[in-house]
Amino acid sequence: MNARDRLAWLRPLLLAGLVAAAAFIPAQRALTRGDLPTTCVEPNRHMTMYAVELPREDGKPRLAYGLTPDTASIPGPTIKMIEGDCLAITVVNTVSRDVLRELRDDPLLGSRDPDMPLGVSLHVHGVKYTQSSDGTFATNSWIPPDESRTYVWFAAPKIVAAGRVISQGTAGYWWYHDHVVGTDHGTGGAASGLFGAVIVRRAGDVTPDRTYVVAMGPDATLNLKRFPETDCPAEPSLEDASNSCYVAVQGERVEFAVIGFGDDFHTFHLHGHNWADTRTGMLASQLDDSRLVDNKTVGPADTFGFQIVAGEEVGPGSWMLHCHVQAHSDRGMVTFFHVFTPAGILLNSSAPVELHEHFGRP
Amino acid sequence: MNARDRLAWLRPLLLAGLVAAAAFIPAQRALTRGDLPTTCVEPNRHMTMYAVELPREDGKPRLAYGLTPDTASIPGPTIKMIEGDCLAITVVNTVSRDVLRELRDDPLLGSRDPDMPLGVSLHVHGVKYTQSSDGTFATNSWIPPDESRTYVWFAAPKIVAAGRVISQGTAGYWWYHDHVVGTDHGTGGAASGLFGAVIVRRAGDVTPDRTYVVAMGPDATLNLKRFPETDCPAEPSLEDASNSCYVAVQGERVEFAVIGFGDDFHTFHLHGHNWADTRTGMLASQLDDSRLVDNKTVGPADTFGFQIVAGEEVGPGSWMLHCHVQAHSDRGMVTFFHVFTPAGILLNSSAPVELHEHFGRP
Amino acid sequence: MNARDRLAWLRPLLLAGLVAAAAFIPAQRALTRGDLPTTCVEPNRHMTMYAVELPREDGKPRLAYGLTPDTASIPGPTIKMIEGDCLAITVVNTVSRDVLRELRDDPLLGSRDPDMPLGVSLHVHGVKYTQSSDGTFATNSWIPPDESRTYVWFAAPKIVAAGRVISQGTAGYWWYHDHVVGTDHGTGGAASGLFGAVIVRRAGDVTPDRTYVVAMGPDATLNLKRFPETDCPAEPSLEDASNSCYVAVQGERVEFAVIGFGDDFHTFHLHGHNWADTRTGMLASQLDDSRLVDNKTVGPADTFGFQIVAGEEVGPGSWMLHCHVQAHSDRGMVTFFHVFTPAGILLNSSAPVELHEHFGRP
Repeated sequence: MNARDRLAWLRPLLLAGLVAAAAFIPAQRALTRGDLPTTCVEPNRHMTMYAVELPREDGKPRLAYGLTPDTASIPGPTIKMIEGDCLAITVVNTVSRDVLRELRDDPLLGSRDPDMPLGVSLHVHGVKYTQSSDGTFATNSWIPPDESRTYVWFAAPKIVAAGRVISQGTAGYWWYHDHVVGTDHGTGGAASGLFGAVIVRRAGDVTPDRTYVVAMGPDATLNLKRFPETDCPAEPSLEDASNSCYVAVQGERVEFAVIGFGDDFHTFHLHGHNWADTRTGMLASQLDDSRLVDNKTVGPADTFGFQIVAGEEVGPGSWMLHCHVQAHSDRGMVTFFHVFTPAGILLNSSAPVELHEHFGRP
Repeated sequence: MNARDRLAWLRPLLLAGLVAAAAFIPAQRALTRGDLPTTCVEPNRHMTMYAVELPREDGKPRLAYGLTPDTASIPGPTIKMIEGDCLAITVVNTVSRDVLRELRDDPLLGSRDPDMPLGVSLHVHGVKYTQSSDGTFATNSWIPPDESRTYVWFAAPKIVAAGRVISQGTAGYWWYHDHVVGTDHGTGGAASGLFGAVIVRRAGDVTPDRTYVVAMGPDATLNLKRFPETDCPAEPSLEDASNSCYVAVQGERVEFAVIGFGDDFHTFHLHGHNWADTRTGMLASQLDDSRLVDNKTVGPADTFGFQIVAGEEVGPGSWMLHCHVQAHSDRGMVTFFHVFTPAGILLNSSAPVELHEHFGRP
Repeated sequence: MNARDRLAWLRPLLLAGLVAAAAFIPAQRALTRGDLPTTCVEPNRHMTMYAVELPREDGKPRLAYGLTPDTASIPGPTIKMIEGDCLAITVVNTVSRDVLRELRDDPLLGSRDPDMPLGVSLHVHGVKYTQSSDGTFATNSWIPPDESRTYVWFAAPKIVAAGRVISQGTAGYWWYHDHVVGTDHGTGGAASGLFGAVIVRRAGDVTPDRTYVVAMGPDATLNLKRFPETDCPAEPSLEDASNSCYVAVQGERVEFAVIGFGDDFHTFHLHGHNWADTRTGMLASQLDDSRLVDNKTVGPADTFGFQIVAGEEVGPGSWMLHCHVQAHSDRGMVTFFHVFTPAGILLNSSAPVELHEHFGRP
């Protein structure tokens, strides 16, 4: 039973709760000039995200962002922008005060400071925002339970004048996350699932056929899961595509957005494919002699991404994708990138991959 | 009471000690050709640095380099060079044999090898030096107590011939540190404060309005401090600028030089600002498609730097600067970059930021 | 007594064993089209490698790859390719079932899963290979004891069309390693010595005079050794050159290939020399403003390499090469790069470097 199935019974309750909550959510103040980055006179895009509770796992709270309460997921929705976009995101906090208190008082990850307020927030990397969209206690830009707040992100463009780069822009692979749950740094928020990818493209960038997110987190997890939960169901089809089922057809252009979070350092490795250690994962020109890599150190809040052509030169099959810290991969920080033949067949799919149980690793 | 204030009463003693020490410091041998990098026929710059004891903190010795004994600081003076500079630095060791022995015999950080000599040294990264300026026991280029030694650093220039780069030069963000206190690798020296930044520019490089150093060290510290000691006094003014008080006026060009040291890996994150992962933090040309980052892994002795325009697009305010390893930020490996309005006002400065106490993190 | 000397008495036994083993090795199936990367119609190079047991160290098994059974070494042979090469490597597994079982059942590094098969494999980074050359259990591309298997690696070339980079190629510094000993990720294989460097050059690349490999591994080791085993014998000569004796003549072009493996993160530092953080360690053009470094974070399976001119600007002498994680260098994760004068003399070689014993570090 996957996460969405497990959630099914909750859907009516959540929707009812949402309607109830909406009735009580105080009217937000309107955005003022000080809420907008300098060049963003007015947001050209708007969206709403909900911070919600998912069912607990192993007794621990699971929180997530979603475009609707019942589609919230870990990681949250991947937000794609183009340099020049100014995006207003209204975040509705439906997480209960009790769960927020539990995370604040967590003996391992919480501040245990009774004076710390309870709420969630939205903090983003890479793009531009004023103090009122910082998502921190220090800037008072957080959201109490049953309230909402609008954050504005500006994907400032690269500016070139007289052949010189005046401003380097914001195109890249970034992430957003809570910054106030558990501690002043959102330690409990991200650890519970409140994060997602942001991808900012520059005009003229190649666009991929598929985009997947790989968040390398605490306790040897990918997207807070360990193998086999990181991987597709048995005999996967292309319709199973998700951030827990990386599938593609040979020849498709596939993008991976990689995020580190928590306390641990990881190394991201993909079998059979490599990429350039640049903004896009591709060499920008014939003169670009950036290093090619197939393995990359990812520290907490480091983000990068790349596009590859699925199965280029190497053909179809199930290609391992794992953290290369041995203790982490041995504990299950592993999944597969399943490349189907052009005819849509996954070789050996009738004998789905099983990894051997590991008893020895702590 | 800041470090300088706490030192005030020591000043007369230190000066007296210095005069006394100077009287006993043996005459140094003159530099010979073998002490000079190949292209440095004669140093064009000279300076003197003192290795001194500061008052203990939490019972632990604090050592520092200074241009004078009473201005020694952690980090030490930032040394700026231009490619082509050849700099002779005479280091005077005023640190007592007792403290050096204590650090050598430290059960956690010391070698505890009674045959290890006692002294300090100066070792540098990135620029060129011969074996006699290596600052190690192996090359016998260290300084016993009450003695001095002259080290020569050459900022070798980039050399291009017929369109090809023949020698890549030494421009970059580097650091200097002791290499003999406590162990053969200076583990006790750096941990006690004997380090500083070196910034080498290339002719034509943009110069910043302000330069700050952020050394990410052991025990979740920035410049060996934890919040709030990492930050300005309440109601900071631009006059408080220091490596424990990062201030700027919106629109100023501000440079951060980041240093890792000790045993731990960190990730450097600055809110609201980003930079290119290049030599200068800026894109070198329109063809340069290096990754933009606002978060970067920093291992021990890794160094990097960048320039940003304070508050560009994001406006004034107090922007968090922290290690993004959650356990580190939660322990206080945090400070703020305070961007004043063009009128010189720090918004909310009457309500200085307080972070919540964290009881739960080890 | 170095490793080769210690092995001398084993040689006749090993050769006898090899002859015996060869007699029993089942005939391999022929390569089919599905075993070859798309553009490799037929391998243009062939080699044989043996996976062998070396004498135990500290009671622990030591395994190694070799071009012959009696020349197997840690790291294994450095495999150099040029973009366009398609290399078929037949690996003969001479490692006993008993040792493989011991590593599988190791309480710290093994899976302890009795259902896990026993064998070795060859997995490579950076170059192209089909599923049948993946070297994993999941793809069934491993080698039981006394059997052999042919792996095919294709150094796919960079392809440029109409000024755009269509495919970025595979030139770079990579490594190969076992992926099935101990756990599904080869944790016990690499930890025992089953790894080596792969260097892929692009047509037109500068070639070095000497190539050395530095593998930064578990337990504060370089190539699974600690100082002084990492370094040359006393009074080294140029004939002692090996991966445990880095020597060069001033002015020679020397290449270091650096590999991380195991669980730990390291920082590679070389005294007196620096390089560019690019594919080759050199700046590709006048426009290339990549960062210069002399210290670099290396996570598990991260690889990089660079070329330097030995003693450029800094002259001859013994230059420290060490992990800059202080706890690691203090434990002996150190060696020296010995640069001889053009006359072939190593200064101070009559007084070989000794580092002080460190008692205090765990």
